[in-house]
Amino acid sequence: MLKVNDNFQKLPGSYLFSTIAKKVAAYSEANPDKKIIRLGIGDVTQPLAPAIIAAMHKAVDEMGATETFHGYAPDLGYEFLRNAIADNDYKARGCDISADEIFVSDGAKSDSGNIQELFSADAKIAVCDPVYPVYVDSNVMAGRTGTYDENTGMWSDVIYMPCAMENHFVPEFPKETPDVIYLCLPNNPTGTTITKAQLQEWVNYANKNGALIIYDGAYEAYISEENVAHSIYECEGARTCAIEIKSFSKNAGFTGVRLGYTVVPKDLSYEGVSLHGMWARRHGTKFNGAPYIIQRAGEAVYSPEGKAQLKQQVAYYMNNARVILEGLKEAGYTVFGGVNAPYIWLKTPERMGSWEFFDYLLETANVVGTPGAGFGPSGEGYFRLTAFGSYENTVAALERIKAL
Amino acid sequence: MLKVNDNFQKLPGSYLFSTIAKKVAAYSEANPDKKIIRLGIGDVTQPLAPAIIAAMHKAVDEMGATETFHGYAPDLGYEFLRNAIADNDYKARGCDISADEIFVSDGAKSDSGNIQELFSADAKIAVCDPVYPVYVDSNVMAGRTGTYDENTGMWSDVIYMPCAMENHFVPEFPKETPDVIYLCLPNNPTGTTITKAQLQEWVNYANKNGALIIYDGAYEAYISEENVAHSIYECEGARTCAIEIKSFSKNAGFTGVRLGYTVVPKDLSYEGVSLHGMWARRHGTKFNGAPYIIQRAGEAVYSPEGKAQLKQQVAYYMNNARVILEGLKEAGYTVFGGVNAPYIWLKTPERMGSWEFFDYLLETANVVGTPGAGFGPSGEGYFRLTAFGSYENTVAALERIKAL
Repeated sequence: MLKVNDNFQKLPGSYLFSTIAKKVAAYSEANPDKKIIRLGIGDVTQPLAPAIIAAMHKAVDEMGATETFHGYAPDLGYEFLRNAIADNDYKARGCDISADEIFVSDGAKSDSGNIQELFSADAKIAVCDPVYPVYVDSNVMAGRTGTYDENTGMWSDVIYMPCAMENHFVPEFPKETPDVIYLCLPNNPTGTTITKAQLQEWVNYANKNGALIIYDGAYEAYISEENVAHSIYECEGARTCAIEIKSFSKNAGFTGVRLGYTVVPKDLSYEGVSLHGMWARRHGTKFNGAPYIIQRAGEAVYSPEGKAQLKQQVAYYMNNARVILEGLKEAGYTVFGGVNAPYIWLKTPERMGSWEFFDYLLETANVVGTPGAGFGPSGEGYFRLTAFGSYENTVAALERIKAL
Repeated sequence: MLKVNDNFQKLPGSYLFSTIAKKVAAYSEANPDKKIIRLGIGDVTQPLAPAIIAAMHKAVDEMGATETFHGYAPDLGYEFLRNAIADNDYKARGCDISADEIFVSDGAKSDSGNIQELFSADAKIAVCDPVYPVYVDSNVMAGRTGTYDENTGMWSDVIYMPCAMENHFVPEFPKETPDVIYLCLPNNPTGTTITKAQLQEWVNYANKNGALIIYDGAYEAYISEENVAHSIYECEGARTCAIEIKSFSKNAGFTGVRLGYTVVPKDLSYEGVSLHGMWARRHGTKFNGAPYIIQRAGEAVYSPEGKAQLKQQVAYYMNNARVILEGLKEAGYTVFGGVNAPYIWLKTPERMGSWEFFDYLLETANVVGTPGAGFGPSGEGYFRLTAFGSYENTVAALERIKAL
């Protein structure tokens, strides 16, 4: 009789955003007349930029003619896209990353979930708390996290690095040395980030301890402050201790287009084994490339027109962030984030848990946000709103919140 | 210090098709004047059908306007596509499969590689030999296959079911009872298949032994004989013992478009755990949906125009299969397959190993095929040619082979 992977059964409840979707659907069904505004899930709302649309139409036409048809893509991505990424996201910033260290994928979520396949079964992971759920959940499924304590909401074999008001949301070096450190900066969910100097300290720490940093830079395009790194490879020594995962979802609105990439430098090796070689093998065996049409869309992100259009798109969302930040302050909330990231992290009113606040906001203002507790125990007492709505909805949501 | 997943280091050599690509590139560089014809990798060459191109243009336009923009897709696939699949691939054939048992993905290769995450670490897998490399390699990476014997080319903890001339390429029930049985029918690489009555025996065997069948039906569209099942769910009892993986790559030419699906019936449970729930959780945690544009392309496969156009496309490739079969016979080869599948499996000339024949064919006829040994030890002495080239190239390749 087949035995199943019983690590799956250890996962508490369902994936955070599935739970929220179900709650909202139930409320909506019971109150069909209410106009709900969703500032919960980090999904974009603006249409794709014209340069991207044009590139996709062209690629679709190519797929319709024998001479220009494209079958299987190279496992690791088309040269045209890998070169555009290397030139624009790395070389232009003085980072020493070459095109063949870039692995194109169907999105940062897949890469974030799959990257743990490279670690031994007993590798010890460290995560910021609160944190994007995929890092921990994918390690749970692989049996790497020990047992779950329902009271604390914590796993016995995960090292948590609390990020809260008290430490200005800057993770501290943990007491126990981790093998793998997940860092998402600018941060989801708190919308905060750390300076390049602080990031350099993490790179030094990882190199000193033989640890690997998984650096999730999905929100890099939203950085507005000068002293914040756009890539971990801006830090000295990162090539020997860091993998960087990037998404096209937030800088180019590709949440429904699906494109991302992961940088695995060739200098990265542990126990004499190259992680670059391992990831190449993983890609080659379990993945068959991102669609040609989508990779052409990715290339257009780096065209002069694409860049100009997307700068406007990011500015549009960051204007929403400003509306949320100012509106919440006006309503008396304590707020964080929203300056280098499209997320605003608010302190829930005293004696109100974050799921309680979720229900309160849904029922009174018909606004959907994300409870901080959904991102980990230290998220309790906080709540996330995203700037990815339309301007009109964002303004309307804040008017409703201010009127409560 | 981080320890790596040392199961990766057990994998011998690189992924089969990467090795072939490197060999061909080296030959091509050394002989730039030779016109190489590739009948090796199973990549299609015909452009996408007009109905699919039209659907994609429409979807691209939708992504460019606020009112019709699509962000994150539902984790498990859009209803419009899941319904089209359920209606056309299952209900129309009398199979009891509902839309919410269908999980849309970025392709059958990903699903084939990821499905093993549902099994316990000590689950024992059985594969046909020869076999598509992904089934075994993905289990090697998960540490499920024991040690590799270089002399036999076999893993100590994998159950091999030899398929050769002697048993008419029909796998026999293994002596040791497996937990998981991978069946690819019509078969890659041999191009052969089994009757529906024979498949029913496998379903009975799996139900009796508490085993799970992973049924890879990627080549279903090429079935031409009446007594062959188009889905394992045509067999009685398959809902309690089988997962079916399907691809759009071969029936619709989506190798560079990336779309597939996996059927996990709700009746499928082991140790009281629903595999449907586990796969839903896996999808929700490590995957973020197939692109909207690509799912619309998939929907067009089932439109009346799409169906008519793709019937012609499949007929085009099957005509190539006929050319290869007849040409090889004329040249004196013993051949199999090519009737219900786009692959032709030939016996290599006496005393010539399959990699030796690969080099021979590359160097004398400038034709690329795939050595049987690359698919497993019982593939030694055989060689695969695919019908996915253009008609002109296929005819030219066979003229060259006949002239040797």
